[in-house]
Amino acid sequence: MLLKKNIPWTYILGKIKWEITAVALYAIAFGLWHEDLNLHHITIPLSIPAIIGTIISLLLAFRSNQAYDRWWEARIIWGAIVNDSRTLIRQLQAFINDPEFSVDVSRITENFTKRQMFWNYSLGQMLRGQDPLKNADQYLSREDLKFVRNHMHVPNALLMLHNRDLKYMLEEGLLNPFQQVEIDRTITRLCDAMGKCERIKNTVFPTTYSLYINFALYLFIVLLPFGLTEHLGSILVLLVILISASFLLVEKMAIHLQDPFENKATDTPMTTLARNIEKDLREMIRDYEYVKANANQTKVVKDNFYML
Amino acid sequence: MLLKKNIPWTYILGKIKWEITAVALYAIAFGLWHEDLNLHHITIPLSIPAIIGTIISLLLAFRSNQAYDRWWEARIIWGAIVNDSRTLIRQLQAFINDPEFSVDVSRITENFTKRQMFWNYSLGQMLRGQDPLKNADQYLSREDLKFVRNHMHVPNALLMLHNRDLKYMLEEGLLNPFQQVEIDRTITRLCDAMGKCERIKNTVFPTTYSLYINFALYLFIVLLPFGLTEHLGSILVLLVILISASFLLVEKMAIHLQDPFENKATDTPMTTLARNIEKDLREMIRDYEYVKANANQTKVVKDNFYML
Amino acid sequence: MLLKKNIPWTYILGKIKWEITAVALYAIAFGLWHEDLNLHHITIPLSIPAIIGTIISLLLAFRSNQAYDRWWEARIIWGAIVNDSRTLIRQLQAFINDPEFSVDVSRITENFTKRQMFWNYSLGQMLRGQDPLKNADQYLSREDLKFVRNHMHVPNALLMLHNRDLKYMLEEGLLNPFQQVEIDRTITRLCDAMGKCERIKNTVFPTTYSLYINFALYLFIVLLPFGLTEHLGSILVLLVILISASFLLVEKMAIHLQDPFENKATDTPMTTLARNIEKDLREMIRDYEYVKANANQTKVVKDNFYML
Amino acid sequence: MLLKKNIPWTYILGKIKWEITAVALYAIAFGLWHEDLNLHHITIPLSIPAIIGTIISLLLAFRSNQAYDRWWEARIIWGAIVNDSRTLIRQLQAFINDPEFSVDVSRITENFTKRQMFWNYSLGQMLRGQDPLKNADQYLSREDLKFVRNHMHVPNALLMLHNRDLKYMLEEGLLNPFQQVEIDRTITRLCDAMGKCERIKNTVFPTTYSLYINFALYLFIVLLPFGLTEHLGSILVLLVILISASFLLVEKMAIHLQDPFENKATDTPMTTLARNIEKDLREMIRDYEYVKANANQTKVVKDNFYML
Amino acid sequence: MLLKKNIPWTYILGKIKWEITAVALYAIAFGLWHEDLNLHHITIPLSIPAIIGTIISLLLAFRSNQAYDRWWEARIIWGAIVNDSRTLIRQLQAFINDPEFSVDVSRITENFTKRQMFWNYSLGQMLRGQDPLKNADQYLSREDLKFVRNHMHVPNALLMLHNRDLKYMLEEGLLNPFQQVEIDRTITRLCDAMGKCERIKNTVFPTTYSLYINFALYLFIVLLPFGLTEHLGSILVLLVILISASFLLVEKMAIHLQDPFENKATDTPMTTLARNIEKDLREMIRDYEYVKANANQTKVVKDNFYML
Repeated sequence: MLLKKNIPWTYILGKIKWEITAVALYAIAFGLWHEDLNLHHITIPLSIPAIIGTIISLLLAFRSNQAYDRWWEARIIWGAIVNDSRTLIRQLQAFINDPEFSVDVSRITENFTKRQMFWNYSLGQMLRGQDPLKNADQYLSREDLKFVRNHMHVPNALLMLHNRDLKYMLEEGLLNPFQQVEIDRTITRLCDAMGKCERIKNTVFPTTYSLYINFALYLFIVLLPFGLTEHLGSILVLLVILISASFLLVEKMAIHLQDPFENKATDTPMTTLARNIEKDLREMIRDYEYVKANANQTKVVKDNFYML
Repeated sequence: MLLKKNIPWTYILGKIKWEITAVALYAIAFGLWHEDLNLHHITIPLSIPAIIGTIISLLLAFRSNQAYDRWWEARIIWGAIVNDSRTLIRQLQAFINDPEFSVDVSRITENFTKRQMFWNYSLGQMLRGQDPLKNADQYLSREDLKFVRNHMHVPNALLMLHNRDLKYMLEEGLLNPFQQVEIDRTITRLCDAMGKCERIKNTVFPTTYSLYINFALYLFIVLLPFGLTEHLGSILVLLVILISASFLLVEKMAIHLQDPFENKATDTPMTTLARNIEKDLREMIRDYEYVKANANQTKVVKDNFYML
Repeated sequence: MLLKKNIPWTYILGKIKWEITAVALYAIAFGLWHEDLNLHHITIPLSIPAIIGTIISLLLAFRSNQAYDRWWEARIIWGAIVNDSRTLIRQLQAFINDPEFSVDVSRITENFTKRQMFWNYSLGQMLRGQDPLKNADQYLSREDLKFVRNHMHVPNALLMLHNRDLKYMLEEGLLNPFQQVEIDRTITRLCDAMGKCERIKNTVFPTTYSLYINFALYLFIVLLPFGLTEHLGSILVLLVILISASFLLVEKMAIHLQDPFENKATDTPMTTLARNIEKDLREMIRDYEYVKANANQTKVVKDNFYML
Repeated sequence: MLLKKNIPWTYILGKIKWEITAVALYAIAFGLWHEDLNLHHITIPLSIPAIIGTIISLLLAFRSNQAYDRWWEARIIWGAIVNDSRTLIRQLQAFINDPEFSVDVSRITENFTKRQMFWNYSLGQMLRGQDPLKNADQYLSREDLKFVRNHMHVPNALLMLHNRDLKYMLEEGLLNPFQQVEIDRTITRLCDAMGKCERIKNTVFPTTYSLYINFALYLFIVLLPFGLTEHLGSILVLLVILISASFLLVEKMAIHLQDPFENKATDTPMTTLARNIEKDLREMIRDYEYVKANANQTKVVKDNFYML
Repeated sequence: MLLKKNIPWTYILGKIKWEITAVALYAIAFGLWHEDLNLHHITIPLSIPAIIGTIISLLLAFRSNQAYDRWWEARIIWGAIVNDSRTLIRQLQAFINDPEFSVDVSRITENFTKRQMFWNYSLGQMLRGQDPLKNADQYLSREDLKFVRNHMHVPNALLMLHNRDLKYMLEEGLLNPFQQVEIDRTITRLCDAMGKCERIKNTVFPTTYSLYINFALYLFIVLLPFGLTEHLGSILVLLVILISASFLLVEKMAIHLQDPFENKATDTPMTTLARNIEKDLREMIRDYEYVKANANQTKVVKDNFYML
């Protein structure tokens, strides 16, 4: 749903265009001048590039796995945020003791729910390094907004406000002590999810691995033509480019997957997920009109936005 | 139990028939015309396809593992749904305080249990993109059905109804506060399982990996005949086809495993699992007749339906 | 403790005797007639079988890992059953409020403990497709036995009886509400373990993988002699058999590990584990005589029964 | 901290001395007599040992990973035991309601803490197949010791005594019902850790894998000299020994890691860990003298004892 | 955020300078004297180093994965510490029953929060083998400091003080019993995180693996020139150095990752994390001035300090 199926080849090749250009220039230069430079006498048996190819494969397999794990963990965390947002509101509605359907309680519930909707947007913005208070006035009460503006860590401040409401509900007898503790646990899970996102965001994948891969890869590319001098003529250039491209593409893929919260076209679709959560929560507080009005909107978004 | 043991070869080869046809045509064309086109002089040492083969193996190993993990995770989630459905009803029966075996309580329990049975069917339908309200009238009370029709996310609405019943039971003194919270936790686990299924469903496996595998694979296939010109004559065609098929089959397998909730013959057997849950739950509310009447039915289904 | 250390070679070779016979016949036939059939002119460079060998290795590594994971998960689940059985009885004894050491309470505790002992045997029998009520009369009260006979899913019915007892204890004031909920959690974990076993039992490992492995493997075996014609004479036959055996044995191993609940000599030692749980639980309810009388018995069993 | 950094080479080579001797004898015999035995005419291309080398690598990678996982899981379990021992005593002190600092309560707490210290030693002894009651009189009260002597499963009996004390504390009003249940959960985690150790101890790693590795390994060793006859003379012997040693050492490593509770110099340092837990717990009950007196002792132990 | 993107090549090569020097000397010596020493006649086919290269790849892949897992687990643990620190203070504020905003309660909360801030610094110091009481007087009350000085395990003593405060709050009616138990659970998770760090710190990665890798690696390096004598002249030296460097760098990387708590430039950024936690917690107790004053400080630190 979140990815375009047909990725143009130009997009993919675009990712490695500088590397491929450099490889091509080297291969062409080798083809043109290796006789003049007396490189002709140097033949390296193909076993040598093959051994280096084995090392590169090992490094790329390792890299791909770790990068995929980061990407997949980011998705798992946001999946948990979806679940816990639903659970939070479901618990609130199921626990709150309001036999008279008072206006006051209904207002509290709505404020709480909207705050949770906003929490998701705000977390997404913060992780992408953008303004975490964007559109805050559409979701937060004036009082809450004033509190939050004092905080650098907006999503954390929102969770504090959740807890403030729970405390009020306990004092007013709207929740019993077990229910307060149980809803607090859901908030704790949201707090954990928030911290996990920050961990992935703030832990750079060991950069030395990239360097080692590049070191081994360019060693491989430099040696490859020396192993092919006897056999091929001008086709050598094409072969070197294509084989290099195979390796380079795998590395680029890993680089894209490993940072799932950078503000790129390929990251975790946090805005879409936050929008879906908003729809689910609005449905739960019976704001059916909003949901129906926005049913098509997502469809449009998904066709243009994400690409991996 | 859920898979036919004897899969016809035609079925398997059917999956890669277009690819194999293309490979065969290329190999035949190469065999017929490579002398005329002066390709005869171009010999590529077999080490080159071997190096590319190593890259492909790395990519396919990665792909197979991730695809299998998605497939297996889908099974784990549905296994958890089975367990939590049983636990939910077991807890309801064990906790409910009804010394007089009143008709009212018995009706509530039955409604609750049937709603849980339906939840499983409904979740399966939703994940396959089909009508989540199919057969809803057989399981839900008129009142519940009316509520659910207003919702786009049917399974989530059903969980809300579960909680509404719990709230009623607490108010009526049928449950004590700890028991309400404890049953709510089981519902939260069901909510988590639901969200996990949606995550797998909505997260497409990075499509660029498929492209890179295909890129490396067809590069391998194109180069392979050039490495065999000296040694073989007409057997070259057969060899190229068979080796290509080995690689292509592994990739197809991964593609089938990676989307466990698409409406294909090979996906997670959600309908069968929902039917088994229904049998277990009916047995728990002592509807023994239903269980015995349906004991054989599953047997029939399993022989025709799933194939992997 | 559960495996014989010295497995006879004949046992191992017995597992692949048909495959090896077929390979041997093919290799001998090739050796005898390849000159007559003019196959002599066809030489395949050994790089080709080597490339296929790489594919096979990839598939076998994947297969071995997944099969081992299933086998090990089965052991983890049964380990959890051991732990939760002990915890269940420990909690029961620690929580029950019986200052007068009444006969009635002592009878309930004993019944409860024996039912848990039987639950383990019954689950093992059910998973192996055997009678889950075998020896039930030695462990269950007449009343319980009557209830269970109405159920197709015996272990689940036993858990329901556990909960029925807890309900009774709560009503009688033998447990307080927290204690009831806490013991129910232990029962929920047992319910989860039961469902996990059923998941492994009922999810066949994707059979297409076996087919692909066999496809690649026999392709490898068929091509191997063509790569050796120049170098060897009659030793070719021996080499082909030994190398094929290396691959075939790894696959057989995976097949044996992947179904840990089939009724084979090599599956999870559920009966032994259930017997050990019985000893631990009897010790906990101070039936020391039983434990001492049965201390040696297990020793005997372990020497004859399990072999992997 | 727990391992000597400098392991003498003789220690390592000692592990494979018999295998290496056999390989050396074979290689020498081959070098001396292969001409006399007309083995000279048999040359096996090096691709054949290379293919077998790939199989062996696959098997050894699988083996190493699984063995390491067992070893690491054993450390994780004992790490959890350290944590839960501290938590148990911290909870006891924080929960117990004793405003008058009575002598009776102080005695109970001390007994409880000492019992937990002993539990760790006892579990370690049991897992190594040694006397689980060694030094019991230094830690257990006379009454407890009498109870425990009746039990074959000593650590489990100690947990029962923990629960007996909790029951007493609840009855005396020293703990409230939530606190009893909460401490019981910590005991349940200790019970789980105990069962996990027993699972690793009692589940032999599938022995057939060792056999298959040895089968492939000796096939490789036997074939290797036939691939080297042309190229080398007497250096062949050295090469065969060194390459064989590379493979054999990896397998030995796996064998040592896979059984982390056997009574070997290289197993999990359970005694040291139990001693560290004792120090932490004594510090928690303000037995500062003990801790300071024993601070250096561990240092001495660690230099001599563990080696991996 | 925590790593410099541009690592100078000199830094990386510095890590393997002794190994590379030794390799270079060997290669040069081989190049100069192999004719004089009659090593000229000894040619080893390149398949032999290639087989050893496969073993090394297997060992390095295993090593890299395990080392990365340790490094990543360390980050996960510290991520959990961040989350649980926030949760602890959020719970304290949300649970504490103080309608009159008394000075006494406010002082307790502040002391508690500062103690938690210090706990993080103290744990980091302890893991690095440095003074765990550094700057203690800035965070702890005089009374607390006196208590802690008696303890060798400072972070554990701090958790005991947390629990002492909870006990006081329960006695004073500031917390209800559920809330006490719930906050204790958060403290238990902190205790677990602390123990997990100690486990990683105290469990040395099996040193024999390093030895085996070095054994295989130097065997590979020694044999490599014998496989290249025919083909290359003086370029042999360069090739041997570059290929050796590829392998050696991967191993060095693993060595750096495997010990995430040693006091090196590349370890887990515990001080930075503790500082971030301090900012979050101060914001939670409305010490906004501190946060704003220190906003830039971290920025400066991050540019100079961590490098991987």
